Amino acid sequence: MRAWSTELREYAGRDVALAGWLHHWRRLGQIGFLILRDGRGLAQVVVEDPEVCARIDGLKRESVLRVRGEVHLSARAPGGVELHAPTIEILVAPPAVPPLDLSRPHLAAAPALVLDHAPVALRHPRRRAPFEIASASMAGFRAALRARGFVEIQTPKVVGTATESGASVFSVDYFGRPAFLAQSPQFYKQIMVGVFERVFEVGPVFRAEPHDTPRHLNEYVSMDAEFGFIDDHTTVMALLAEVVRGMVTAVATEAPDAVARLGVRLPAVPPSIPAIHFTRALEIAEPRAGQSGAEMSDLTPQHERGLGEWARETHGSDFLFVVGFPMSKRPFYTHPDPRRPGYSNSFDLLFRGTELVTGGQRLHLYEDYMSALGRRNLSPAPLAGYLEAFRHGMPPHGGFAIGLERWVAGLVGAANVREVTLFPRDQQRLAP
Amino acid sequence: MRAWSTELREYAGRDVALAGWLHHWRRLGQIGFLILRDGRGLAQVVVEDPEVCARIDGLKRESVLRVRGEVHLSARAPGGVELHAPTIEILVAPPAVPPLDLSRPHLAAAPALVLDHAPVALRHPRRRAPFEIASASMAGFRAALRARGFVEIQTPKVVGTATESGASVFSVDYFGRPAFLAQSPQFYKQIMVGVFERVFEVGPVFRAEPHDTPRHLNEYVSMDAEFGFIDDHTTVMALLAEVVRGMVTAVATEAPDAVARLGVRLPAVPPSIPAIHFTRALEIAEPRAGQSGAEMSDLTPQHERGLGEWARETHGSDFLFVVGFPMSKRPFYTHPDPRRPGYSNSFDLLFRGTELVTGGQRLHLYEDYMSALGRRNLSPAPLAGYLEAFRHGMPPHGGFAIGLERWVAGLVGAANVREVTLFPRDQQRLAP
Repeated sequence: MRAWSTELREYAGRDVALAGWLHHWRRLGQIGFLILRDGRGLAQVVVEDPEVCARIDGLKRESVLRVRGEVHLSARAPGGVELHAPTIEILVAPPAVPPLDLSRPHLAAAPALVLDHAPVALRHPRRRAPFEIASASMAGFRAALRARGFVEIQTPKVVGTATESGASVFSVDYFGRPAFLAQSPQFYKQIMVGVFERVFEVGPVFRAEPHDTPRHLNEYVSMDAEFGFIDDHTTVMALLAEVVRGMVTAVATEAPDAVARLGVRLPAVPPSIPAIHFTRALEIAEPRAGQSGAEMSDLTPQHERGLGEWARETHGSDFLFVVGFPMSKRPFYTHPDPRRPGYSNSFDLLFRGTELVTGGQRLHLYEDYMSALGRRNLSPAPLAGYLEAFRHGMPPHGGFAIGLERWVAGLVGAANVREVTLFPRDQQRLAP
Repeated sequence: MRAWSTELREYAGRDVALAGWLHHWRRLGQIGFLILRDGRGLAQVVVEDPEVCARIDGLKRESVLRVRGEVHLSARAPGGVELHAPTIEILVAPPAVPPLDLSRPHLAAAPALVLDHAPVALRHPRRRAPFEIASASMAGFRAALRARGFVEIQTPKVVGTATESGASVFSVDYFGRPAFLAQSPQFYKQIMVGVFERVFEVGPVFRAEPHDTPRHLNEYVSMDAEFGFIDDHTTVMALLAEVVRGMVTAVATEAPDAVARLGVRLPAVPPSIPAIHFTRALEIAEPRAGQSGAEMSDLTPQHERGLGEWARETHGSDFLFVVGFPMSKRPFYTHPDPRRPGYSNSFDLLFRGTELVTGGQRLHLYEDYMSALGRRNLSPAPLAGYLEAFRHGMPPHGGFAIGLERWVAGLVGAANVREVTLFPRDQQRLAP
């Protein structure tokens, strides 16, 4: 029976079998210290037998091993526990040494090199930790929504119509017909509110914008929810706060090793996340961002950073809702603020000074859709399927989309979203 | 506080508020019977007030309503409970009547028409039930794997290299460079075995085959798992059996209404799923399928049906493993059977006579990959990232991929996989 490296303490005084990769090997005179890495952590193996030492001397890093030995508690060992008197079985002796030194506390290599060698670089304990956090986050997202009666859906990624105005799309040759990669599941999740009232989806979205920033990718994972019978966007914001709380809890309980390894400071989600109107956000942000101009209709990254500082200083909060973005900057399906023409019932949720979530109330009346499309000179024809849902009764509804990679980047303090994406896609990068 | 239609019994004798869609309305003299549909089920509302009756007379189907009334137990009511003395608030009065009669027990319309009007047709209680089952199945898949230490991953769908030999790919214009839609997460999930040992992914896959069958789609949802330190394919089969068991349990416990509505007979997953070698499968299937020819190197759908009957008659099992497919029909990464050259350590799992899962042990030695590519005249250059994982130590590993839509089709007895796909994609269909 095999044990995980992270469970070794439970086996103190007993024999145990580990399996994993030769992470590091150093000789100190007659004694050798082998660090074995498995899918969860590291274990120190103390080798005193000269024959075993000699065998390990001949192995390359990343050799795949099975190691059996006695578990000893030891104050000097990393984690306070180590394996003694091992027998070692070599499962795989790889042909080459890794292009990166995985045994250093931090990967000392240029970011591009790390991405080029992702299949190996991701084995580094710090490098893989964000993906343990991502896995826990997705589980927390789904658990929070399932507990509230949401149904998980899977909607097509090859579509006949672009979904988000403004954002450019990737073209697909679909049996000789033009098609696109879905920029979001927006239309489908709204349609499905007519079916299940409450739906969510976790899946890839594709944006063909030729941006080259630390916070944009051309393919990313969107965690979407949409639900009906809301009062307005505030119902959506209340749900989102609960979902984010569930995600933080899941990260704390399901990825504690990764949290500890990276020294992640998990955010507190206040009972009521502070919320300010877009116009107020500009007043706060512009002096801080050194920007002015009352005519701004959107927030810049500088604004967001300033607002993040303000939320921390004024409310002690890592989160800040900005509500009521100008209609002109939101997609056609956005519900206007009935009391404040020109502004919308939509919001962004900033997390530590970066936009993490976009959401809001959507239009739900067929006639409102027809007017909105008309005002924007958009043809209803390509949207026939979408509009059919509204033609046959849709309740007031809304939802949100959380960017998984941005969430993880904010948690672990990654400067670039590529650090928390397994195999990022950008203008330059299509492999590995 | 709003109640779900499915919870009405719990409110017997009390006032309750429901919300949903006007599913059906009929007058019997002075009394009217309104069937309200919400995201979960149906509720009967008895209307005796002539003014309320008159208001409902003027409403179209699929009007969105809030209904408050007294909950009465009644043997004559569907489900034994109904709402009396209702007050009705009309939230949305839609502009048109639905193109399909959603109130019939079965949707009486041609399959193509139902798909054309999916945004409305999916509201039908029988039509939406398979997606409640799909949602529960995904939850069961993930729960079974998370309980066994698997990490959820999200891998790119836009890729630089085709993954599955034989299957054709969709092309994407990626900033002027050629790219493809991923036919499977195969390469990435194998790479990630080097990182976490145990990984899974639920996501879309894309196949450009121009097939037109009841069991193929050009985009579908693949539930993938892959893990290391296995003995051989039998370790994979044992895990798969546990995962399928977890999925059945999740469907039973999390989608009982849908199971009841469709009269789904849930399969028993036997403690040991019967398994036969490919050569034996041909012997069994060929007489039944009326096909012969000992030179067969794959199973046809007729074979699979015959084997399904055989498994049921001989073993009382809905499931059957066919093991050891010829190497010539399996992808280059397939591990051969060391004791039987020409055959592989791979398997299919048949469910009720249809291939549901493909899986097996993979090659794990770098030199074996180089030989396998050489034998198939495949260039290693486009696979550089994938091969890098093997160049630096990969344990014996394997995995499987379950087709979500086929699973649900098998459960509910759908003749065509399109019936259990929200918005299917085939050669003809790119919308809605």
